Amino acid sequence: MTLIAEVAETGTTAYQSPKDIAIEGARAARAEIRAGRHRDVTSGMAPAIVQANLAILPAEYAADFLRFCHLNPKPCPLIGMTEPGDPMLPMLGEDIDLRTDLPAYRVFKDGVETDEVTDIGDYWRDDLVGFALGCSLSFESALADAGLPLRRYEYGMKTCAYRTTIETTPSGPFRGGMVVSMRSFTPENAIRAIQITSRFPEVHGAPVHFGDPDTIGIKDILKPEYGGWAKIPEGDTPVYWACGITPQVAIEYAKPSFCITHKAGHMLITDKLNAEFASL
Amino acid sequence: MTLIAEVAETGTTAYQSPKDIAIEGARAARAEIRAGRHRDVTSGMAPAIVQANLAILPAEYAADFLRFCHLNPKPCPLIGMTEPGDPMLPMLGEDIDLRTDLPAYRVFKDGVETDEVTDIGDYWRDDLVGFALGCSLSFESALADAGLPLRRYEYGMKTCAYRTTIETTPSGPFRGGMVVSMRSFTPENAIRAIQITSRFPEVHGAPVHFGDPDTIGIKDILKPEYGGWAKIPEGDTPVYWACGITPQVAIEYAKPSFCITHKAGHMLITDKLNAEFASL
Repeated sequence: MTLIAEVAETGTTAYQSPKDIAIEGARAARAEIRAGRHRDVTSGMAPAIVQANLAILPAEYAADFLRFCHLNPKPCPLIGMTEPGDPMLPMLGEDIDLRTDLPAYRVFKDGVETDEVTDIGDYWRDDLVGFALGCSLSFESALADAGLPLRRYEYGMKTCAYRTTIETTPSGPFRGGMVVSMRSFTPENAIRAIQITSRFPEVHGAPVHFGDPDTIGIKDILKPEYGGWAKIPEGDTPVYWACGITPQVAIEYAKPSFCITHKAGHMLITDKLNAEFASL
Repeated sequence: MTLIAEVAETGTTAYQSPKDIAIEGARAARAEIRAGRHRDVTSGMAPAIVQANLAILPAEYAADFLRFCHLNPKPCPLIGMTEPGDPMLPMLGEDIDLRTDLPAYRVFKDGVETDEVTDIGDYWRDDLVGFALGCSLSFESALADAGLPLRRYEYGMKTCAYRTTIETTPSGPFRGGMVVSMRSFTPENAIRAIQITSRFPEVHGAPVHFGDPDTIGIKDILKPEYGGWAKIPEGDTPVYWACGITPQVAIEYAKPSFCITHKAGHMLITDKLNAEFASL
């Protein structure tokens, strides 16, 4: 009897696959968040695991928002959706409860932010539908694995994101300009970054633009609308990816009677590996 | 009995697959060239078919040149090689005879061009080895199929190619700067072009650079060393691919006692489909 056959028969081994280890890390991170012991951003938690943007809307808006995601897959890559009234999201992981499993939420009434909370149990309603959208942390992980330098770590920047004049395709009340995130690279590394992110269509995919910020309506590249400030070293070219902040802009336009989103950077940690989202 | 089964059994159909038709076109083109009825460039002949750069060297140089190709796969993507002394290249197609099947050849002695001929039968020797290298016509065909505009057709330019300061990795006497070809695109189309050409590593693959010509040692982008002149419309970014002229520069450095190459644009037409060279 081979060792593998023996292990399979007796189940006595403590062997865990890299995937098992990653998912165990994801579940531990969600448990920390649910218990209220982690209120900060989720960047750096649960390595190799997909983190997601969250939007929660009343069922009456769900069809239009779903269609908005379908029409604008680069900024709004839908990776999970709940049943109306059900806060659980089994398609993205075990025992995921959208009411408690993110570190911070923003609550909107008629398009205006009214509250920021760490638990939305009190806000939950029987008609709410949760949408989970892919996030650039997944492809940043793939870029870093490929050895490409991410300037925000070098300079201590936040992710820089900008409103643009690239219009989304409207659906019902949802519309507005695309938000893009920017990372700068040497041209050689930008070519690699385009290749790598092309493999991840479910987390924004290939960039939508590079170079001149003016042509997509960015007025001052050093002053992003989101992220505070930017620095681009000599010899780098800015490269722009569709950004998950776009649906929040669309929600601002739509002014739904009620809405909950994650707070920027305070993401939903799933049980999915980033590598599972690679298309090739 | 189904129609397909009947056809398979009786063999009475005149059906030709797109591949059959393309290869028939390739063989007809080679026959025209071999018969001396076509002496011009091969661009536009045998649609969908791989055309190749040719270098023929005495066997004493073959190992170093083969290693040069191996060390520099982007400018020198080796797709076929003959046995020493054998002018036939069966690995790239039926009845390909390197002595007669290209419209024009250049003959070099000690690194100096001594002749330009349309048939190298009189120059053939028992120690010659032929090397066929992938060519950008293949990826240009994929770019055009994807709907990307190629400016050289709009403006009536030749393919623009430049000597650069990007050094190849030397092997024996073979060395020198990489030659790059340039095509300009809007940033959005450049992203598509990077994606598409990444699929074709055997015909130069992804670009090696985009944007600033200075950083790779190109002094005047409007005056290419090969191709005469260039025009880049407002809003376009120049994108640079490793070019099959690079091995000719390496041969200039090596000054082999004897060498034959194709004349620029007068390529070897193979029996291989461009699509067969797509890696994904």
